[in-house]
Amino acid sequence: MYEIYVTLKNIICRKDSELYMKTMRRIERQMNEMEVLDLLKKGEYGILSTCDEDNQPYGIPLSYVLIDKNIYIHCAGVGTKIDNISVNDKVSFTVVGKTKVLKEQFSVEYESVVAFGRAIRLAEEEKYEPLMEFIRKYSPEFIEEGQLYIDKAKKITTLIKIEIYSFSGKHRI
Amino acid sequence: MYEIYVTLKNIICRKDSELYMKTMRRIERQMNEMEVLDLLKKGEYGILSTCDEDNQPYGIPLSYVLIDKNIYIHCAGVGTKIDNISVNDKVSFTVVGKTKVLKEQFSVEYESVVAFGRAIRLAEEEKYEPLMEFIRKYSPEFIEEGQLYIDKAKKITTLIKIEIYSFSGKHRI
Repeated sequence: MYEIYVTLKNIICRKDSELYMKTMRRIERQMNEMEVLDLLKKGEYGILSTCDEDNQPYGIPLSYVLIDKNIYIHCAGVGTKIDNISVNDKVSFTVVGKTKVLKEQFSVEYESVVAFGRAIRLAEEEKYEPLMEFIRKYSPEFIEEGQLYIDKAKKITTLIKIEIYSFSGKHRI
Repeated sequence: MYEIYVTLKNIICRKDSELYMKTMRRIERQMNEMEVLDLLKKGEYGILSTCDEDNQPYGIPLSYVLIDKNIYIHCAGVGTKIDNISVNDKVSFTVVGKTKVLKEQFSVEYESVVAFGRAIRLAEEEKYEPLMEFIRKYSPEFIEEGQLYIDKAKKITTLIKIEIYSFSGKHRI
């Protein structure tokens, strides 16, 4: 009944940089790796879930890019998510694709991915490439202007890499 | 730069069932209580963030309803979110409204709300009203059919109330 995401059993795990699948409860709803990466690639934003020192979860929507099956986000140097990540670097990142309410069936069509990983703050010299990927994803018509923008903004921008250790994708279509 | 949600400072808190505001970092982006409740009311789905026993955050999209400033979700009786809530009942629930990438400004227009609360499993006799609210929200043209559907589905459906103790709303328009 209207449930977008029933339970987490469809996990693609990473071990020694190899990806492998775990079983899920509703096998017919499992997305394969290509579908998962495709949704992660095209998603406009995702929800970063972190926990604070009292284990209070905190989910916030963020723009992001995907490079080599890792997720990159950026933020100001201060704030709740930076505080949370510094006490607990485990995070999840959730991207929802198309959804459609099926009114007469009391149900929903959907596609979604949950990635699990560790949040790592990038060093100054590691920032440029992910920032350029933001320009290529969100402003492909303004690459040159984006380079100039990055040159100005890079120093005050914090970049976080989410090193994914497993992800799960689910759809009901 | 493309950031949908910068930091959490714009908090509307509940104390003895009264709501009050805390300050935020970017005051010009703060939504007032009516805007927050309006977005929560109309949102098609939200992301429930929970934590497991190892404090691994887990964010999943779910349909939901809002009744008296509390959020209700439903799910199967088994699964990761039920497991997580039983070891840590603190959750957050995030709803994103309209977003628009501003390509030339390397920025984003957005509206979003994060609610913080405790997840409480409802007793059998408490399920009917929230389930009917699901029908009224998602299938307003099928109220009678929905009642019949609930009669059949109620027993195997788990209802969770998120008793909100604070929420924050932010927009950049």
